[in-house]
Amino acid sequence: MLYGIVVFPEKHVQDYANSLRRRHDPHYSAIPAHLTVREAEEWTIEQLQMAVAHLEQITSMLPSFSIHLNRVSTFYPVNHVLYLALQDTVSMQQLHEQLCSGPLAVEAPTYVFTPHLTIGQELSADELHDLYGNLRMQEIDLSTTIDRVHLLYQTDNGSWTAYQSFLLRG
Amino acid sequence: MLYGIVVFPEKHVQDYANSLRRRHDPHYSAIPAHLTVREAEEWTIEQLQMAVAHLEQITSMLPSFSIHLNRVSTFYPVNHVLYLALQDTVSMQQLHEQLCSGPLAVEAPTYVFTPHLTIGQELSADELHDLYGNLRMQEIDLSTTIDRVHLLYQTDNGSWTAYQSFLLRG
Repeated sequence: MLYGIVVFPEKHVQDYANSLRRRHDPHYSAIPAHLTVREAEEWTIEQLQMAVAHLEQITSMLPSFSIHLNRVSTFYPVNHVLYLALQDTVSMQQLHEQLCSGPLAVEAPTYVFTPHLTIGQELSADELHDLYGNLRMQEIDLSTTIDRVHLLYQTDNGSWTAYQSFLLRG
Repeated sequence: MLYGIVVFPEKHVQDYANSLRRRHDPHYSAIPAHLTVREAEEWTIEQLQMAVAHLEQITSMLPSFSIHLNRVSTFYPVNHVLYLALQDTVSMQQLHEQLCSGPLAVEAPTYVFTPHLTIGQELSADELHDLYGNLRMQEIDLSTTIDRVHLLYQTDNGSWTAYQSFLLRG
């Protein structure tokens, strides 16, 4: 089964992101607005059990933190993705590094981990540049507390279901 | 904010339910296939905190259990809903009663609690009867373990986001 680890920003951030995702993100209905902590991967039941034990242990030592989303950015031309970018990515990078260790180490990462909240993807280059141009003119000033991570799994229709939450208790 | 408590059946049950929900349930993309444990309600931050403490305490004493979904049933004519029904509802009813106590007591319930997994709703009477007639001819034999409950909240677009999971640790 395909498992992934995400954080969900607070509702006001999701509401803002959804106003854009509704039109520009084909995954809009498959998963709420989120920041990916670990990319989806096929796990066996044994891997799932090891992952849960690892997440319980690590999250118990990690403190909660805040992030500030202050602009729109893009992975173009590597990926036709628009996203809300973080003013300071250190805390999210640390969360990623701490969680993606031991049994959850990522063997050969496809990309450098870049914390982001996707608001558009699978856009044509023209659409992407139009939207990016418009959104860069908007002032974006969204803060959210990150005090938990969520382990999700995917069903056959492509949607994601919550499996377990892990509070940052450190 | 609007909070609700649900259980998600295992993936194979969700996949079966989704094959019907896709066409017959307008809430298909708002929430994965689920059984509601406590109906959605507006909570303040203080109510949320009390609810979380209550859920942590109660779930720590409750054992996990299995349910067997063995037929399609309906709430017609009260509600134009089709659902997968449980062979034996006692465990889910106990879960509901245990969780919906203290700060989570339901003051004036609209309906008698009937554990169900919705596969169609907001159907016309004709659609409902057609579908019900067809589905009653199918053999339904789905089992799933219930070993956790999920507290969810609703965003402005009507979708539900996972807030916290509570394992049945008893």
